[in-house]
Amino acid sequence: MEVLHMFGSEEQKRLWLQPLLKGEIRSCFCMTEPDVASSDATNIECTLDRDGDSYIINGKKWWISGAGNPDCKIALVMCKSKQPDASNRHSHHSTILVPMDTLGVIRVRPLTVFGQDDAIHGGHFEVHFENVRVPTSNIILGEGRGFEIAQGRLGPGRLHHCMRAVGLAEMALELLCERAASRRTFGKALYQHEVVAHWIAKCRLMIEQTRLLTLHAAHALDTKGSRAARKQIAMIKVAAAQMVCKVVDCAMQVYGGAGLSGDFPLAQMYAYARTLRLADGPDEVHLSSIAQLELRDQLKKAQAKL
Amino acid sequence: MEVLHMFGSEEQKRLWLQPLLKGEIRSCFCMTEPDVASSDATNIECTLDRDGDSYIINGKKWWISGAGNPDCKIALVMCKSKQPDASNRHSHHSTILVPMDTLGVIRVRPLTVFGQDDAIHGGHFEVHFENVRVPTSNIILGEGRGFEIAQGRLGPGRLHHCMRAVGLAEMALELLCERAASRRTFGKALYQHEVVAHWIAKCRLMIEQTRLLTLHAAHALDTKGSRAARKQIAMIKVAAAQMVCKVVDCAMQVYGGAGLSGDFPLAQMYAYARTLRLADGPDEVHLSSIAQLELRDQLKKAQAKL
Amino acid sequence: MEVLHMFGSEEQKRLWLQPLLKGEIRSCFCMTEPDVASSDATNIECTLDRDGDSYIINGKKWWISGAGNPDCKIALVMCKSKQPDASNRHSHHSTILVPMDTLGVIRVRPLTVFGQDDAIHGGHFEVHFENVRVPTSNIILGEGRGFEIAQGRLGPGRLHHCMRAVGLAEMALELLCERAASRRTFGKALYQHEVVAHWIAKCRLMIEQTRLLTLHAAHALDTKGSRAARKQIAMIKVAAAQMVCKVVDCAMQVYGGAGLSGDFPLAQMYAYARTLRLADGPDEVHLSSIAQLELRDQLKKAQAKL
Amino acid sequence: MEVLHMFGSEEQKRLWLQPLLKGEIRSCFCMTEPDVASSDATNIECTLDRDGDSYIINGKKWWISGAGNPDCKIALVMCKSKQPDASNRHSHHSTILVPMDTLGVIRVRPLTVFGQDDAIHGGHFEVHFENVRVPTSNIILGEGRGFEIAQGRLGPGRLHHCMRAVGLAEMALELLCERAASRRTFGKALYQHEVVAHWIAKCRLMIEQTRLLTLHAAHALDTKGSRAARKQIAMIKVAAAQMVCKVVDCAMQVYGGAGLSGDFPLAQMYAYARTLRLADGPDEVHLSSIAQLELRDQLKKAQAKL
Ligand SMILES: Cc1cc2nc3c(=O)[nH]c(=O)nc-3n(C[C@H](O)[C@H](O)[C@H](O)COP(=O)(O)OP(=O)(O)OC[C@H]3O[C@@H](n4cnc5c(N)ncnc54)[C@H](O)[C@@H]3O)c2cc1C
Ligand SMILES: Cc1cc2nc3c(=O)[nH]c(=O)nc-3n(C[C@H](O)[C@H](O)[C@H](O)COP(=O)(O)OP(=O)(O)OC[C@H]3O[C@@H](n4cnc5c(N)ncnc54)[C@H](O)[C@@H]3O)c2cc1C
Ligand SMILES: Cc1cc2nc3c(=O)[nH]c(=O)nc-3n(C[C@H](O)[C@H](O)[C@H](O)COP(=O)(O)OP(=O)(O)OC[C@H]3O[C@@H](n4cnc5c(N)ncnc54)[C@H](O)[C@@H]3O)c2cc1C
Ligand SMILES: Cc1cc2nc3c(=O)[nH]c(=O)nc-3n(C[C@H](O)[C@H](O)[C@H](O)COP(=O)(O)OP(=O)(O)OC[C@H]3O[C@@H](n4cnc5c(N)ncnc54)[C@H](O)[C@@H]3O)c2cc1C
Repeated sequence: MEVLHMFGSEEQKRLWLQPLLKGEIRSCFCMTEPDVASSDATNIECTLDRDGDSYIINGKKWWISGAGNPDCKIALVMCKSKQPDASNRHSHHSTILVPMDTLGVIRVRPLTVFGQDDAIHGGHFEVHFENVRVPTSNIILGEGRGFEIAQGRLGPGRLHHCMRAVGLAEMALELLCERAASRRTFGKALYQHEVVAHWIAKCRLMIEQTRLLTLHAAHALDTKGSRAARKQIAMIKVAAAQMVCKVVDCAMQVYGGAGLSGDFPLAQMYAYARTLRLADGPDEVHLSSIAQLELRDQLKKAQAKL
Repeated sequence: MEVLHMFGSEEQKRLWLQPLLKGEIRSCFCMTEPDVASSDATNIECTLDRDGDSYIINGKKWWISGAGNPDCKIALVMCKSKQPDASNRHSHHSTILVPMDTLGVIRVRPLTVFGQDDAIHGGHFEVHFENVRVPTSNIILGEGRGFEIAQGRLGPGRLHHCMRAVGLAEMALELLCERAASRRTFGKALYQHEVVAHWIAKCRLMIEQTRLLTLHAAHALDTKGSRAARKQIAMIKVAAAQMVCKVVDCAMQVYGGAGLSGDFPLAQMYAYARTLRLADGPDEVHLSSIAQLELRDQLKKAQAKL
Repeated sequence: MEVLHMFGSEEQKRLWLQPLLKGEIRSCFCMTEPDVASSDATNIECTLDRDGDSYIINGKKWWISGAGNPDCKIALVMCKSKQPDASNRHSHHSTILVPMDTLGVIRVRPLTVFGQDDAIHGGHFEVHFENVRVPTSNIILGEGRGFEIAQGRLGPGRLHHCMRAVGLAEMALELLCERAASRRTFGKALYQHEVVAHWIAKCRLMIEQTRLLTLHAAHALDTKGSRAARKQIAMIKVAAAQMVCKVVDCAMQVYGGAGLSGDFPLAQMYAYARTLRLADGPDEVHLSSIAQLELRDQLKKAQAKL
Repeated sequence: MEVLHMFGSEEQKRLWLQPLLKGEIRSCFCMTEPDVASSDATNIECTLDRDGDSYIINGKKWWISGAGNPDCKIALVMCKSKQPDASNRHSHHSTILVPMDTLGVIRVRPLTVFGQDDAIHGGHFEVHFENVRVPTSNIILGEGRGFEIAQGRLGPGRLHHCMRAVGLAEMALELLCERAASRRTFGKALYQHEVVAHWIAKCRLMIEQTRLLTLHAAHALDTKGSRAARKQIAMIKVAAAQMVCKVVDCAMQVYGGAGLSGDFPLAQMYAYARTLRLADGPDEVHLSSIAQLELRDQLKKAQAKL
């Protein structure tokens, strides 16, 4: 959605953005591939081949969230040009619009996360593209500009993930406190066990720190734009994902066996929380970006001192 | 099995231990209850009521591993006497043999762990006992001696858990290394990313330390007996459970999205590993025991110095 | 200073607060005692004995910051009444003004922190009070109100500590980046070692989170007052102290042997950072307070839902 | 000492090893340099220049343990040949014997660790070599074989460090337990605070794991030799250093303010413990070695399966 809004042509907006905004249809974003390490997007292999007025697309994608939703009518597919410009590793890729009902678009199977299929949200699918043909006008921004698009897209998307993570952690802490107040072992309520009490304190601390960081990043995004807020966005991506995993894990532990069962939402919450350390790029890749930006900033500061 | 071997009467051994040893039948151990915090066994509420030559049992149990296996013919049930000796909080409980086909024994439902039902191993069941009547000769050791039995039982059982945990962690590290050698991002194999390399080193370190501690505890158990080895057993219980969670989680991260999916065994391994921090008593209870035993030992040492 | 401002009588303000504000003299706060665990202030034993128009003070204090400064003219001493009101454990203590040149006030010795004496800031002294006599008008607020005062005092004081901690951490990260850019091992600059790069990223993350939390707490203190901001103040106290220890330790590691030496300020910074986990109350006591306040808040929320 | 024993010529042994073994003199090992990152020994710059029957040595070394001891009569100095064999980066360095009273050997200054000078053990010195001339027969093994020597030396040396670390940690835990038993806050002895109790348990766990790993490595070193035991030696180096830092830090925290002061040995113990994460190579370098050896082993295992 953000992609079309930011980078779509008038025609593309009319055809796809308007129905998306009206909620009539949904979209999916197809980058990750099963056969290559996709946290480095230059690895993407799905081919884009020009043939007259059309492009032909061939490749395998997976973890495509929402692709199983019957309302999902349009895919944004990241591809690699068959005849790329050899000089620039970052201009080989393109993003193209592919209607889901095009011949050759195959929803192969839903993937599971810790055995669960997340069907409510349309699941995460393996999707194959076999000789899929679309008009050249479907390309966004132009051939070779896939990276720009991937960059621009991720800022707002990541903020949403982080807000959800903070909310989820709040819910987990609430559940934790409830249980800690209602069960007793060894003559004390669970919350009177100092170890459990300190978990509660540490969870609150982690949640507050992440909440404030998220608000700060949102403010930077609104006021300075996606490029200037890159470090902040990367920071909350890492912080929120790791925080929510720890908070939900704590809550699970306080519930004892019940925490792992289907009687409480915690195990399912954990499965979701754990995906956040990978979806939209693994922690490690973001930490490397933060480090790079930090070093750049420190260097500037050092030079300014001279 | 260990319980009958150590504490069973001749009659009990003949009837149940021999078919168990021959592999003709299986057993389950019923302690945990849904309505009370069962990591403190004095909370157990399932009632044991003497009525002439019989006992009548009423209560709810859950997380009963193996209860769903059709070969599971006998349950060891921990109960609380209706008329306990008020003076000693640790002599209210008893362990009694209940054939699974007795009237009133109801397998209510299998529980799930992270949504998975572990059916291969017979699952983990909620089991209710409604006016279940068994002869008084089914009691093990005698009324009020349930704690002794629970203590004696757990040593060897925990060792098995820890050995399995070490094995599982070895498998996870092997899988991790395989993937780290076969995928590339940003111009390097994953194992050449220093962060991933250090994970490998730390996993190996953790596994070795836990393996040696487990061997040491096994040796203590064999040579000094279950009572003297209590501290060691508690130590490996905590160490192995936490270690295997960390190692499997690392491996999952190195697999990226694939690690969470059903295409690799890692997510399922994690679900199992995570149960080890709770099954047979949560980490926190064991840490408290270790602390108590350590303080006792330090005190002895201090006095010996005087 | 804050104490006199908030709780002093007109006379006390005139005599002591004005010269303090003018920078003519300095003060010290005497609570901690060598012979009792002083993180629980109800343990304080220094006696306060009424004798006509005077109080007589007897006791030992230590870690009295600034007591060695020649400008330090006035001490605020926490004492326990000899005839306390038995019913309320929290009204046995008082705070009283003691001019440092009163007969019986003895600066016994400076204490060292990791072997360093912090002499620049006036050091941390052991101070004994032997039959020290002061007029009854020197008591602040009245006998038995020492706890109120200790509470009121600590909010702003802790904020200052946290701000200093954030500043110190910034300096450590700057030093770290400098070194990481100027040294090479195994064919790369240190910052190109991914592990070092990730430390940089994590340090930045921790600093930002603590900075925002501190600003948030300062805002709460200014707008809602010290009582309402208690949870926030406790949170930053813990977060800032632990954060600065980690950041400085990282920087020390990146400096190799040099980091421990006197050639760089890092070892001294660490010694200071480490005191923050104890001064003004150890982490553990604050974590327990946060937990208690959080549980209270969660309970209110739960009741509001009904 | 080990170096001469393993690699010295008969002459070298007679002149230096015998008095060392009799305890008449002491030695020091000079590798680290202030101006280059010495954790990568290929960076070493101190020059070795052949001039007829002599070598001339020029360079700066620091952190030379024991150099301040008046009995320290002989230094083993790592140098870089002025005309090295360009083809092999690992054959540029040599180790040479330099009597401490040779003209041009200058003990510049003692270094401090957290402000302390460790004078009892002879301190850690900055030592300069200015046109120092020694006979060519002083070279050990031959020019270009410094790496071999550094490798061979470190195995046994590291084991000693680790044993000391385990002993130090035991002492810290003993001190911790003593204090935890003798002080009270909030109505309980410190050891009854569950958080402190769990620290005791975790310290015991860490110590046991490291002790067993150290014994295991010592056994491997004795039975398989220094080369085959490389992974184990690197593992204990990292484990012991990190463990002892954590245990001593815990003990310090339990002592409150007293833990940082000179009244108890803990702050000094911490300063020593912290050096172990750097001396004989920083943790990070050892973790990288472990990872490399582990990957090699996993690869062999994988091939053996085929
Ligand atoms: C629930 C869920 C929903 C998703 N939805 C979508 C979607 O809608 N569309 C879509 O295109 N994709 C989606 N993804 C895929 C996701 O974006 C990828 O899984 C992620 O980018 C990682 O790629 P990969 O799985 O190929 O892991 P790989 O690239 O193989 O990386 C594996 C691991 O290698 C390590 N690693 C990689 N690079 C470095 C480095 N530089 N330094 C250190 N370590 C490194 C990391 O630990 C990483 O986790 C989803 C994933 C999940 C789990
Ligand atoms: C896969 C699996 C298999 C199992 N198999 C069996 C079986 O075959 N038979 C059987 O009887 N049971 C079985 N169990 C149950 C298991 O033994 C219990 O879940 C466990 O003992 C904890 O009891 P609880 O769930 O009632 O947790 P609770 O007692 O409610 O405890 C909840 C949490 O409170 C905290 N807590 C409790 N006491 C303390 C303390 N002193 N200090 C600090 N924190 C504390 C801990 O974090 C703990 O996790 C199984 C459980 C699992 C997950
Ligand atoms: C550099 C420095 C400057 C200082 N300046 C001053 C000053 O100016 N004036 C002044 O009066 N004091 C000062 N102090 C003293 C400081 O406030 C005390 O050291 C601190 O409050 C702890 O008290 P204690 O040292 O008596 O530790 P103790 O009370 O003996 O506590 C020791 C440890 O027990 C544990 N513990 C205690 N209670 C609990 C609990 N509820 N749960 C879990 N664990 C617990 C904690 O780990 C704690 O660290 C200073 C200290 C330092 C290091
Ligand atoms: C108490 C003490 C006693 C000592 N005694 C002696 C002695 O007797 N003789 C002697 O020769 N030396 C001695 N040393 C020196 C010691 O061996 C060196 O300090 C150590 O090898 C590190 O070298 P460096 O200080 O030059 O750090 P550098 O090489 O500058 O390294 C700095 C930091 O960079 C990082 N780093 C380096 N390489 C990597 C990598 N591959 N991956 C990730 N991070 C990396 C690490 O965090 C490292 O700590 C002693 C040191 C101490 C503290």
